[in-house]
Amino acid sequence: MIQAYAVKQPRGRLERIAYDPGALGSDQVEIDVIACGVCHSDLSMVNSEWGDIGYPFVPGHEVVGTIAQIGARVQHLKIGDRVGLGWFSGSCMVCNQCLSGNHNLCPTREQTIVGRHGGFADKVRCSAEWATPLPAGIDIRKAGPLFCGGITVFNPLVQFDVRPTHRVGVIGIGGLGHLALQFLNKWGCEVTAFTSSDAKRDEVMQMGAHHAVNSRDASQLSKLAGSLDFILSTVAVDLDWESYFALLAPRGRLHIVGAAPSPIPVPAFTLIGHQRSLSGTPAGSPFVIRTMLDFCARHRIEPVVEYFPMSRVNEALAHLAAGKARYRIVLENDLA
Amino acid sequence: MIQAYAVKQPRGRLERIAYDPGALGSDQVEIDVIACGVCHSDLSMVNSEWGDIGYPFVPGHEVVGTIAQIGARVQHLKIGDRVGLGWFSGSCMVCNQCLSGNHNLCPTREQTIVGRHGGFADKVRCSAEWATPLPAGIDIRKAGPLFCGGITVFNPLVQFDVRPTHRVGVIGIGGLGHLALQFLNKWGCEVTAFTSSDAKRDEVMQMGAHHAVNSRDASQLSKLAGSLDFILSTVAVDLDWESYFALLAPRGRLHIVGAAPSPIPVPAFTLIGHQRSLSGTPAGSPFVIRTMLDFCARHRIEPVVEYFPMSRVNEALAHLAAGKARYRIVLENDLA
Repeated sequence: MIQAYAVKQPRGRLERIAYDPGALGSDQVEIDVIACGVCHSDLSMVNSEWGDIGYPFVPGHEVVGTIAQIGARVQHLKIGDRVGLGWFSGSCMVCNQCLSGNHNLCPTREQTIVGRHGGFADKVRCSAEWATPLPAGIDIRKAGPLFCGGITVFNPLVQFDVRPTHRVGVIGIGGLGHLALQFLNKWGCEVTAFTSSDAKRDEVMQMGAHHAVNSRDASQLSKLAGSLDFILSTVAVDLDWESYFALLAPRGRLHIVGAAPSPIPVPAFTLIGHQRSLSGTPAGSPFVIRTMLDFCARHRIEPVVEYFPMSRVNEALAHLAAGKARYRIVLENDLA
Repeated sequence: MIQAYAVKQPRGRLERIAYDPGALGSDQVEIDVIACGVCHSDLSMVNSEWGDIGYPFVPGHEVVGTIAQIGARVQHLKIGDRVGLGWFSGSCMVCNQCLSGNHNLCPTREQTIVGRHGGFADKVRCSAEWATPLPAGIDIRKAGPLFCGGITVFNPLVQFDVRPTHRVGVIGIGGLGHLALQFLNKWGCEVTAFTSSDAKRDEVMQMGAHHAVNSRDASQLSKLAGSLDFILSTVAVDLDWESYFALLAPRGRLHIVGAAPSPIPVPAFTLIGHQRSLSGTPAGSPFVIRTMLDFCARHRIEPVVEYFPMSRVNEALAHLAAGKARYRIVLENDLA
């Protein structure tokens, strides 16, 4: 039996449950959970913001741990290996997307907390290709948030060929944004942080921003008109998008990884006049995750985390909901 | 004096005028107009759809003709050279955009019919870099529409690296779309034409489409779900954009060159889930125009045109406004 924390009804509190995961699939692995990050999407799903989910619902998709069991056909992992697991937990391996290295875009991809149980638990399972080994130099206790928050902001840099010569803005300096600043600084870019919190100013500069701009100050924004090659929005709120399009240099891209609740309105001439793009990406593929982990190890990039024991998961979610997380919460497994 | 056709008030008829262009700039050329295509944007501006324009207003930005005069500093053109002139007529040559080959994105670019007089005239002027020589093999009488309609749909194929292995859809088979079909067919792509006119079906297949889909038939659209790498929208109307996003393959792009009147609403998850992009481009740079003309000459790509004498310009605009142009109207200069 797997011990886990689950909600049993919409907007419920998490309660301890046990469930039988059945026989391990031949292409699967089982992970002994050491720790699991808490992502805003865990909270959104607990709060039923993205529609119906089945119950009981076990959140958690920023898992780190060690391999506890391997399926009969798994060759490349062994018991005890340190691995991480993020938003995706399975892919068909034979569709065009999988065969071209884009397993994260597989039409039948499995998502760790959609229709199955996640990592707020003592164990969690996934298809072996999604259990990514941690390279030496990665602190496993802190690494969980790299597997969703981290890869979600690293992936677009790879997919859209962000260059070291680019000027890049990051909107929202939270769990995702604080990692984006670190990545982009080491990527070689000139980095501007947009945050509504002046209190974070010194911290964002330490994380790698070269400039910090208060996103609620229109005069600060307007000084950047036409200057940014890439803007990465990590926020799950509606913004005055046109004011950010105006900051893009010709050929610039506004890229969305945060789940803004309302459709983004885009006038045709906003795109046409200066060859602008709007785009979005999900979490990255297994290969891009490996690439990110190597980059983190080389540049000593780490999430800034606050620890809670997993038994205090409700308190942790309340802390996140209150906007107080600095910058990512990690639940340490204390299930006995 | 230059003889031209102009509107003198919002939504007016075109009337013959004469104007004094002043001394020729040292970096300019003057073109003896042989013919000038009629673009939907000429009509939009005559109809004051895009805000105020100065009067008298001389439309026309698909000009072909021969060099009549060259400025003192112009070395690479000579009197009598066959050239074309499109939407842009000047650029600063020294900003980052100009110096990187993107003169069409120069912040101080000049537009042929914005704040100056266009090509519904016996002569028109431009900065020399925007008077593009016609290679051998290009029929000058037909070539005008390449300089706006043509380059507007050719440019995105270059800018966004459309590959011969891609599946590409074209929305709207008119002045722009009928050239896009020809380009894409010779580019090596699998080409799907979306048109609301079943009457055009045989013609679009002859132009290079491999499939013709009635865009008003939801069941035909839904069969293409997830299949297209690139969709090029040439229409200046609001569409059910979500139904076209749904046709994109993972990593696909919806690209806009038509001036849809209302903002395009884009849900964040429409972009994020499958790594989709939305983008737009203006007409291309001088180098991309040269590249297009070489491609047209090599593959015998030509606009399908209807000729009107320039003196019947009002009749020509009415024909266009009625949706009857097959596929591009060209005004032949009969000003004496």
